[in-house]
Amino acid sequence: MQLKLVIGNKNYSSWSLRPWLVLKQLGVEFEEILIPLFVGDWRQQIGQYTPAGKVPVLICDHFAIWESLAIMEFLVEQFPEANLLPTDPAARAMNRSIAAEMHAGFINVRTHMPMNGRARYPGMGRTIDVLKEINRITTIWRDCRNRYGSGGDLLFGHFTIADAMYAPVVLRFVTYGVELDPVCQAYLEAVLNLPAMQEWLAAGAIEPYTIANYEYQV
Amino acid sequence: MQLKLVIGNKNYSSWSLRPWLVLKQLGVEFEEILIPLFVGDWRQQIGQYTPAGKVPVLICDHFAIWESLAIMEFLVEQFPEANLLPTDPAARAMNRSIAAEMHAGFINVRTHMPMNGRARYPGMGRTIDVLKEINRITTIWRDCRNRYGSGGDLLFGHFTIADAMYAPVVLRFVTYGVELDPVCQAYLEAVLNLPAMQEWLAAGAIEPYTIANYEYQV
Repeated sequence: MQLKLVIGNKNYSSWSLRPWLVLKQLGVEFEEILIPLFVGDWRQQIGQYTPAGKVPVLICDHFAIWESLAIMEFLVEQFPEANLLPTDPAARAMNRSIAAEMHAGFINVRTHMPMNGRARYPGMGRTIDVLKEINRITTIWRDCRNRYGSGGDLLFGHFTIADAMYAPVVLRFVTYGVELDPVCQAYLEAVLNLPAMQEWLAAGAIEPYTIANYEYQV
Repeated sequence: MQLKLVIGNKNYSSWSLRPWLVLKQLGVEFEEILIPLFVGDWRQQIGQYTPAGKVPVLICDHFAIWESLAIMEFLVEQFPEANLLPTDPAARAMNRSIAAEMHAGFINVRTHMPMNGRARYPGMGRTIDVLKEINRITTIWRDCRNRYGSGGDLLFGHFTIADAMYAPVVLRFVTYGVELDPVCQAYLEAVLNLPAMQEWLAAGAIEPYTIANYEYQV
């Protein structure tokens, strides 16, 4: 199976990071097609790959699959030996629940703390609704680590789709200097230390594009 | 496996309809726990079942699974013989993609055309962004029907999770009198005519609760 992943800027595109990280953790070969967002005919370029007009898109041989969660469930099925979801039914149910919670929710964190891997805006973005969402996110992280994390450093021990879904949140917490308890801080560092995350950040750091809406400088 | 589904009002809770419809279409036994939204200690009642504080929640024996898409992927796995996802890889990919697109998107339709099964507000809610989203939704419906719908009346012929995800949109189009082309109108009627949909609407019609935010009367 030939795989191509269409993504946006590595510095800014939180949705793109998620399936990219899964593919890297799987160690499978894929072609990367990076379309800088808000540059030139970027909408038309994306439209070549998906009728939904959004990145990421995974092209598998002759068909496309879009939306990060759909891509992940596809990869879960394609690579069962990678255990991208835990096999224990309760852990598997929780993994899917918190992945979907991220997919459709946390709109305030996403709005007021846009992903920006190379920026440091400590203390910015903290509306009341953002703080409530951060509280829910850290509760999720502690809950997973305490219940299912004993086999490793990630939410369910080994790498799963839940880690991919929350990886952009890790980058946001670094950028906006969110203070964390020791359990959540250790998890944050475990995600940051994944070689694929370092590779993503290094590539994003030297991208020549700036998206003003995702920067706090005025 | 003992299943309990925690839902909100049948007249208003679009998210609740989705997994309820899947369970009904599967024909499996489940206990229904209906918590009227915005009434009394409804938040505490939901909080007993899920840390995320939202309906729907599916309780399976000793564990909970929340978020409609997570519940659906769980049911896909539990009942493989029901083909809740198509088996053809391209159709399966598209089904997941459009289900996830609904899960995280169409925020304007959701905001300006709230589900309200018993109300009729023809012509209301049509902002420019709502019309753009309706255009995308009807494009999805036509595309699925044309490519994969030949085996029956639903998006992929037989009932799939994509139909469950778009079922509340069908009810919205009825409530707000959205005019449709013949292909989309036939699909709308096929969903409306599912006995489970009629059962849901009949129960919602006699619920004694009114949620003012979801009504257009002022």
